[in-house]
Amino acid sequence: MAFEVHPWKVIEHGLDPKAVRLSESLTSTGNGYMGMRGNFEEDFSGDTHIGTYIGGVWFPDKTRVGWWKNGYPQYFGKTINAVRLMGIHVEIDGEPVDLAQTPCENFTRELDMQTGIVLRTFTAILPKGKVTIRAERFVSLAQKELLAISYAVTPDFACTVTLKPYLDANVHNLDSNYQETFWDMLQEEEAEDAMGLLTKTKENPFGTPRFAVAAAMSCWADGLSLCSRRMEEGMVEATYRADADAHETVTLEKFALCFTSRDEAEEMLMTVALKAAARARETGYADARDAHTAAWKARWKGCDVEIHGDDRAQQGIRFNLFQLLSTYSGEDARLNIGPKGFTGEKYGGATYWDTEAYCFPVYMAIAGQDVAKQLLLYRHMQLDGAYHNARMQGLRGALYPMVTFTGVECHNEWEITFEEIHRNGAIAHAIFDYVTYTGDESYLLSEGLDVLCGIARFYTDRVHYQPKKQCYMIHGVTGPNEYENNVNNNWYTNRIAAWSIRYFWDACQKASEERLQKLHVTAEELAHMRDVADRMYYPVDAETGIYLQQDTFMDKQLMDAADLPEDQRPINQHWSWDRILRSCFIKQADVLQGLYSLGHLYDLETKKKNFDFYEPMTVHESSLSPCVHAILAAEIGYRDKAMEMYRRTARLDLDNINNDTDDGLHITSMTGSWLTIAQGFAGMRTVDGLTLNPYLPEGWQGYAFQFHYRGRLIRLEVDGQSANLQLLLGEPLGLHFCGEDQTLQSKLTHTLA
Amino acid sequence: MAFEVHPWKVIEHGLDPKAVRLSESLTSTGNGYMGMRGNFEEDFSGDTHIGTYIGGVWFPDKTRVGWWKNGYPQYFGKTINAVRLMGIHVEIDGEPVDLAQTPCENFTRELDMQTGIVLRTFTAILPKGKVTIRAERFVSLAQKELLAISYAVTPDFACTVTLKPYLDANVHNLDSNYQETFWDMLQEEEAEDAMGLLTKTKENPFGTPRFAVAAAMSCWADGLSLCSRRMEEGMVEATYRADADAHETVTLEKFALCFTSRDEAEEMLMTVALKAAARARETGYADARDAHTAAWKARWKGCDVEIHGDDRAQQGIRFNLFQLLSTYSGEDARLNIGPKGFTGEKYGGATYWDTEAYCFPVYMAIAGQDVAKQLLLYRHMQLDGAYHNARMQGLRGALYPMVTFTGVECHNEWEITFEEIHRNGAIAHAIFDYVTYTGDESYLLSEGLDVLCGIARFYTDRVHYQPKKQCYMIHGVTGPNEYENNVNNNWYTNRIAAWSIRYFWDACQKASEERLQKLHVTAEELAHMRDVADRMYYPVDAETGIYLQQDTFMDKQLMDAADLPEDQRPINQHWSWDRILRSCFIKQADVLQGLYSLGHLYDLETKKKNFDFYEPMTVHESSLSPCVHAILAAEIGYRDKAMEMYRRTARLDLDNINNDTDDGLHITSMTGSWLTIAQGFAGMRTVDGLTLNPYLPEGWQGYAFQFHYRGRLIRLEVDGQSANLQLLLGEPLGLHFCGEDQTLQSKLTHTLA
Repeated sequence: MAFEVHPWKVIEHGLDPKAVRLSESLTSTGNGYMGMRGNFEEDFSGDTHIGTYIGGVWFPDKTRVGWWKNGYPQYFGKTINAVRLMGIHVEIDGEPVDLAQTPCENFTRELDMQTGIVLRTFTAILPKGKVTIRAERFVSLAQKELLAISYAVTPDFACTVTLKPYLDANVHNLDSNYQETFWDMLQEEEAEDAMGLLTKTKENPFGTPRFAVAAAMSCWADGLSLCSRRMEEGMVEATYRADADAHETVTLEKFALCFTSRDEAEEMLMTVALKAAARARETGYADARDAHTAAWKARWKGCDVEIHGDDRAQQGIRFNLFQLLSTYSGEDARLNIGPKGFTGEKYGGATYWDTEAYCFPVYMAIAGQDVAKQLLLYRHMQLDGAYHNARMQGLRGALYPMVTFTGVECHNEWEITFEEIHRNGAIAHAIFDYVTYTGDESYLLSEGLDVLCGIARFYTDRVHYQPKKQCYMIHGVTGPNEYENNVNNNWYTNRIAAWSIRYFWDACQKASEERLQKLHVTAEELAHMRDVADRMYYPVDAETGIYLQQDTFMDKQLMDAADLPEDQRPINQHWSWDRILRSCFIKQADVLQGLYSLGHLYDLETKKKNFDFYEPMTVHESSLSPCVHAILAAEIGYRDKAMEMYRRTARLDLDNINNDTDDGLHITSMTGSWLTIAQGFAGMRTVDGLTLNPYLPEGWQGYAFQFHYRGRLIRLEVDGQSANLQLLLGEPLGLHFCGEDQTLQSKLTHTLA
Repeated sequence: MAFEVHPWKVIEHGLDPKAVRLSESLTSTGNGYMGMRGNFEEDFSGDTHIGTYIGGVWFPDKTRVGWWKNGYPQYFGKTINAVRLMGIHVEIDGEPVDLAQTPCENFTRELDMQTGIVLRTFTAILPKGKVTIRAERFVSLAQKELLAISYAVTPDFACTVTLKPYLDANVHNLDSNYQETFWDMLQEEEAEDAMGLLTKTKENPFGTPRFAVAAAMSCWADGLSLCSRRMEEGMVEATYRADADAHETVTLEKFALCFTSRDEAEEMLMTVALKAAARARETGYADARDAHTAAWKARWKGCDVEIHGDDRAQQGIRFNLFQLLSTYSGEDARLNIGPKGFTGEKYGGATYWDTEAYCFPVYMAIAGQDVAKQLLLYRHMQLDGAYHNARMQGLRGALYPMVTFTGVECHNEWEITFEEIHRNGAIAHAIFDYVTYTGDESYLLSEGLDVLCGIARFYTDRVHYQPKKQCYMIHGVTGPNEYENNVNNNWYTNRIAAWSIRYFWDACQKASEERLQKLHVTAEELAHMRDVADRMYYPVDAETGIYLQQDTFMDKQLMDAADLPEDQRPINQHWSWDRILRSCFIKQADVLQGLYSLGHLYDLETKKKNFDFYEPMTVHESSLSPCVHAILAAEIGYRDKAMEMYRRTARLDLDNINNDTDDGLHITSMTGSWLTIAQGFAGMRTVDGLTLNPYLPEGWQGYAFQFHYRGRLIRLEVDGQSANLQLLLGEPLGLHFCGEDQTLQSKLTHTLA
């Protein structure tokens, strides 16, 4: 890895043609509305993955590979690659600059996380001399539709410089079958001062929305003159040319803007885009850049985490926060947090249980209660889809989807779609999280109750009664550990199901008669639900009292992950699936996930016993896994393990730990580093008021972070001597701090042992 | 269903626009080299599935839907729709005849199974009068590349008749994603007396073969004159026109021929096709028809089955034999028997375990030992692929593929590809079947030993030792009953694995030292194999002694399929997959499959006990299931059940029992009706010499069939009075007939009770 450790930047020195995809992932930028991978502006004929993605724009892939099963979703929802906005063909004396062919020196690419600007400089070595290129760009945080580029070329010899900025909608998805495309090209247009193109997703037979996208560009050039403009199907291009003297810099500013039919009427799109492009050019690059950097500054103000004495850890948490803030802003209630954000196609911009299980508490703390509520409302808005999904399985109630853009399930592997029903529990739990964090029960008794009712009904119908043991069982599931499929009585699933049913039952006790009648909830139904929740079966090892991941887990050949040869890891890249399924190795926290999520219901002894049993078998090949282990380890007192897991979660992508960051970043799991600092090292708990029990991890000189809590902004600073709490905003607050009940007026200090 | 019951024909009266696909499947024709669905020659804008398929021509679909797992095949092998050979646009006074738009009367379509000719007649009702059309065609059994059509138009009013025969390679697969195609159009050509086109499967990145296909047509017309010819990319067309008087018949004869790079050099293909088309036209339709019908007559001679007193049963068995003979002839060792033959795309022309488990004994009896040996050699030829498949799973030995064209697995559902390892056992068993049937051990000790060695090594590596029970187990499999996935210790899988290992061990005792050395088989390896075979674990219910389908089968909610509401069947079309998996219902014989395949090792009591337990839970939603139950039922003495199951297997497609015949015919399962008559009603066994213990099923007046056996041709006739055996060809034979050891000199008669 050629990436430098730096507290605020991701810096690559030198070009490694074999690792371009990885660098592209790591220098991705976005603004919640759209985003793109850190591709080159100019041509690159080497191995690259050019990707531009727009929030909420997707397509139903109807490919049916394998044998279709009844009840399968009708299509596989796909994040689709959209119009390439950043492209500029560069020619020197008629020869293209292409770093796969053209030798270069002093190649540097950096992402400045403080300002959200990507800067790339290099010197191309040509037969007649050298040409230095400086390319700077940003996806604007101040104007969501805008990508702005400043592209400067300085030859050290007299030559003809040709720059051809273009927009190109002839793009493919990475996994497309024989270059199939998902876009119809509708229109290319040329205005006095801008060029635009309009595309629309292909007709589909599923009644899912089609998206029209218009993109326009307008350019300004210093030292170059416009020679010609060209339009082809799905492509517009302008040609600028200059006869440059030696050491003369010629600069092109390109403003590319992208609008979609999600926000604008389709027939107005092209006009809107062309006008906006012309306006952006009038504003100019420098002013647009100022507005953008100011917006990033404001965003960082509320959520920066400082770590002293460990630059790698510092870079890790900032990288994660930067990408999280680039992916989701809470401004558009129709959007959610895609596991790869705008950085790749796999999992793409679809919504997963990741949102509730990992992201929700983070956004609640760093972006505030209103943003968190948007995430809750997203699921409420999609409740019809969840009812539909349950119906497709022949079951009552609501089953939230494993993967979705609309609420309707759009993933098509039975072991996931049909079996990973624990996802419902995470959505119920987010409501609990919100209510306990904010102290506000109004959501619980309004929209929240609708959601909980659907979830409780689903689980109640999904169990079956086992007369011999006089309890309820759940057969045929896949738990959070996806390295087992189709198991019976997954402890986590049974536990979160029973908890969700009971949480609904509890809420019903507080709800009005009228509210319950509207939901058609009867006393009889509630009594049955209560019975199911109370008599749920939990597999437990008789000898040790360990909670069993599933009924027959102990029949497996149990061994430690540490005994796996290094060259067989990650096992999902070296072992065939059947071997993984038969093994004891755990992809991600499962029983431990339950002991984390419902941590207030279990004592330390139980957590320790199960941690000691499961942690050695856990290979953490899900990026969502290490943070849960880190937080539990911190609570149990395994501080080394907690730090080991923190490093893994904080630098998963920067260090390419799972060897798959070239596909895109692990956005949702980036929340893990914040969770580890707050809930692990700082011991933050919010179930019963606010608790903070911080410690300073070994090797750090100190850390600090601030968070929103019940209308307040609170800052915690921890160093070798003490933990200091500061009320930055809002009314005094009673809380548990370092083991004592205290009131935070403006400051509290606790000396650390 | 508008299909008439007829001993030799499939006749449809009247056109049901909603059931066109079903009729197309049922009137499919082929000749082992190519085949096509029973489409209309003229345009049809209604719901139709136009399909032409060529043996051994396929394509790797690289679509990756869902989450790819390590070890998955790189592609999904697809039978691809090839050039449409039969098309003729028909216009009367410039208006197209299109039975989705044009009203018609007296519509009849019939497939004559004795001659392999499809005839269609109807009268189109046009504004100015009526036009009667008679369309006859055949896929020649005498010249494998030839489709010949005689198309006659008789208006009852004066009009202009235009006929435009064409070839069209712009075809899609039924399941293609947004109309993607798998063919590159290379060339269209016009010769003096023929037109041709050349296509080639698209470039693929997997190194799998690309297939070039040339098709040419030449036409002869009575009463029509050639007006023009037209070529477009992937399409050639000729236009014939006549001003016809009232009641004048105008006739077009179209000869379309199709050649592939599997047989001819690519650069010669077009020339070969054009010449062959011209020659076919010179020969003329009548002569080509004579040659074709003569070939069918000869083919029927060796294998017809007669049933007296039950025309439905008679039609069923003939339909099955006709389609089997249309699909596989044994002439081309590179081909095998696709589950849908040339009649559809699902399962397509790929090779499955169906071949060995169901087809092999039938072809051995009706087509002879040499044809059967071709099927064995096919697997021997693909042994490298099987070793590759095992390596992909990280295991030793050879794993034959679930789905293949080359020996390499090309299906991509883990529960099938990785888990349905019982398929290896069927391939070992076919060798056993061949050896015992023919009495010839030479194959066993030559190529057979290579195959058995790979299979035995695979199974031996796939087990794990369970120290507490001191036995070997097989976890994580899918048995023949695909309505359970990822189960532990499937009785059938464990049993056939142990049997296969032991069969190899036994064969090694007969093999030379040199032979074993060549296979690197050591005494130590053999001892370990013997230990695995001897100490294999078999789940058995302690109370009843029933063999358990898998370890936890008895934990399920057990109920009878008879108690399922009719409107929920077949459950695979009404229940979601997870519900099916959790239920007790069995798709196809599993434990019973083992008791059938290894019937010589189990007593009647065991068979009866297990049959009584499993049969009520079996929904037979695999077309491969009823024949196994029929044969066991006949042996046990459940004659009504045997007949019920016979009807289901013999008329599965004719009566569209599984409600999916519109996709194509269930070719491989068609062997079930022959097996039921021979092994069920006639009690034929061949493990230890030849045994026949026939009875006359209730409702039948008699039945007769003949079969090849050790160089002889034997005919069995059964009626209400007696069973008669006749030696048609070959030397006298000692056998067990009706419970007695006898010698068949020329005839044997046994009076039935």
